[in-house]
Amino acid sequence: MNDFIYYTPTKVIFGKGSETKVGALIKEQKGTKVLLHYGGGSARRSGLLARIEDSLSEAGIAYTELGGVVPNPRLSLVREGIELCKKENVDFILAVGGGSVIDSAKAIGYGVYHGGDVWDFYNFKRTPEGCLPIGAVLTIAAAGSEMSDSSVITNDETWEKRGVNSNYCRVKFAVMNPELTLTLPAYQTACGCADILMHTMERYFNHGDNMELTDGIAEALMRTVIKNAKILVKEPENYNARAEVMWAGSLSHNGLTGCGTDGGDWATHKFEHEIGAMFDVAHGAGLTAIWGSWARYVCDARLDRFVKFAENVLGIAPRADAAETARAGIEAMEDFYREIGMPVSLTELGIAPTDAQIEKLADQCVASTRDNLGKVRHLAKEDMIAIYQAAR
Amino acid sequence: MNDFIYYTPTKVIFGKGSETKVGALIKEQKGTKVLLHYGGGSARRSGLLARIEDSLSEAGIAYTELGGVVPNPRLSLVREGIELCKKENVDFILAVGGGSVIDSAKAIGYGVYHGGDVWDFYNFKRTPEGCLPIGAVLTIAAAGSEMSDSSVITNDETWEKRGVNSNYCRVKFAVMNPELTLTLPAYQTACGCADILMHTMERYFNHGDNMELTDGIAEALMRTVIKNAKILVKEPENYNARAEVMWAGSLSHNGLTGCGTDGGDWATHKFEHEIGAMFDVAHGAGLTAIWGSWARYVCDARLDRFVKFAENVLGIAPRADAAETARAGIEAMEDFYREIGMPVSLTELGIAPTDAQIEKLADQCVASTRDNLGKVRHLAKEDMIAIYQAAR
Repeated sequence: MNDFIYYTPTKVIFGKGSETKVGALIKEQKGTKVLLHYGGGSARRSGLLARIEDSLSEAGIAYTELGGVVPNPRLSLVREGIELCKKENVDFILAVGGGSVIDSAKAIGYGVYHGGDVWDFYNFKRTPEGCLPIGAVLTIAAAGSEMSDSSVITNDETWEKRGVNSNYCRVKFAVMNPELTLTLPAYQTACGCADILMHTMERYFNHGDNMELTDGIAEALMRTVIKNAKILVKEPENYNARAEVMWAGSLSHNGLTGCGTDGGDWATHKFEHEIGAMFDVAHGAGLTAIWGSWARYVCDARLDRFVKFAENVLGIAPRADAAETARAGIEAMEDFYREIGMPVSLTELGIAPTDAQIEKLADQCVASTRDNLGKVRHLAKEDMIAIYQAAR
Repeated sequence: MNDFIYYTPTKVIFGKGSETKVGALIKEQKGTKVLLHYGGGSARRSGLLARIEDSLSEAGIAYTELGGVVPNPRLSLVREGIELCKKENVDFILAVGGGSVIDSAKAIGYGVYHGGDVWDFYNFKRTPEGCLPIGAVLTIAAAGSEMSDSSVITNDETWEKRGVNSNYCRVKFAVMNPELTLTLPAYQTACGCADILMHTMERYFNHGDNMELTDGIAEALMRTVIKNAKILVKEPENYNARAEVMWAGSLSHNGLTGCGTDGGDWATHKFEHEIGAMFDVAHGAGLTAIWGSWARYVCDARLDRFVKFAENVLGIAPRADAAETARAGIEAMEDFYREIGMPVSLTELGIAPTDAQIEKLADQCVASTRDNLGKVRHLAKEDMIAIYQAAR
């Protein structure tokens, strides 16, 4: 078992109508001037922003607004947000949306706190030493950014997609009302479930001497998401299923499912990050399109964990040969992805990278990880190319 | 599913040698003058206090000391600690020990912050509005006080044992080195495992419409503790087993295993609190001595959860009749308690309360809960008497 640090200071307010508490929550955090940061117009049309604005006004908190965050959030909008915060003396950022909006808020928070070029933090040139305080009203269960130390931004000049991790950007409070997700389209719901599962699977598949308790928690989380993702295909307005998935999303990426491990593999995420930067696909769908190919390529290096996954998460009965059990588990996972409408190949994802493009994707993976990708099995450039090609 | 707030700001530093980091951790918290608070002489004899003092000195942090905390920590020592902190201008308390020491530190923290009589907080007269910051070096896996919002103190004038809960007393950091627990006596180890299990069982047995994810996490935690408690009977120096139990202890009482429930039952804890105040027994042993009698008395009111517990935690195969499955689960739990050397009756606990004493215990339960004890089933005074008597 590895030593670990566990730090999840985010106060979670979970339940119906919880978004009306944001004014009081920001006051508790001593915020006086807020940047209300969000994505498209749905938060406005649904009345959510109006409810939040009312709550801020009731608490006597001034605010300015910046909408327009897109999936794979853009550096250019982050820069705009930083200038706006400086101009308006903003001392608290309220992110209303999913992971993209929260990640964008974190990047703005870094930029306002430090000055200089914020992209430096995403490009290994500087390490964060602080961040403007951030709160979140979550509208999509997926990225887990509401409790994570992570922020991923796409540079829309170079089309690089890069992440930075630090405790400074941990959200002060996260308001989670599952009702806000009842009307999410089926595809977005499924993408979110895929992302949540992958956050736990990336940690579960590792090369360490694991902690049983962490494994047991991770397996319970994965079983819960698989079961409720299937329910949501048929009953998108099932509150309890939405709530199970939403809470799983936070626990999948706040560190809990990695305690005592070697940190996890994260190769599938890296493969998807590069695909996402080149083709701008939905993150969750990019993950499911590549995972099976990665899993088949590496599973012999950690057969015991793939067998455990097959049996404890997917209910596969043990086969005569452990490798068979492991492969049955991978197939069952792909069957599940298909059942919720997720792609299990790049073709199904709707992209057809050329050999030259695959080589470039692999080059980017090598460069951005300093040739240090994969824990279940280290992956060199030729392994990456083989996995991308197998995923076609 | 119930709405909930989840707030666990404690930074956990888990692993070998982690106690040497306390100086740096207190500096991070801006502490300048520390009260080093501990129990008996074992922390001194083992060299632990010397390593901690070295770490404080290296970080340039001054400290004063107060040892002598006993199980069921006493109000008189809390009062002494409050005076000492005021006299020495202490701005940070470092608790080195288990739940008793941490609970005592929390009480001192309340007292220093507020002034006035600290017992007021334990006696419903005042509500905490702050607390001196506290850090912990955990030496016993049991009470979970290192991540909980709870502090339980015994008034050694009236022999009342009372608890107060607030987020203000949440420990800023918890240093958890399982090595520090390798030499714990078998009885203390087993008492700790019993306490950890009960913190999750009290939440698991409730009357709400539960969250599957919370149930799955709770069941994984209980299975892990049961398995590793048995290992520790034979291999007390098994590091991994100690680590599993230690981490389970924190997660069992930081709120995680109660998310989405109605708050849980807590009757067994209350019964034990009154026994502990009257007879000064070990907390974990007091819990196992009474639990089976409580469970048999109330299980028909929530048969579904007792069946789930039997099947998912104890591996009981479903019987023809659900009540039979539930009872088989209760018996299997008692068998487990016996296997690790814990009592399953008051006689085995070594006490023989008279009828008059049992009536007094029940009166205390009614008074200190304002006649509001039990979620699986509300327990009136006559129910309490019946359960105490059945536990003889």
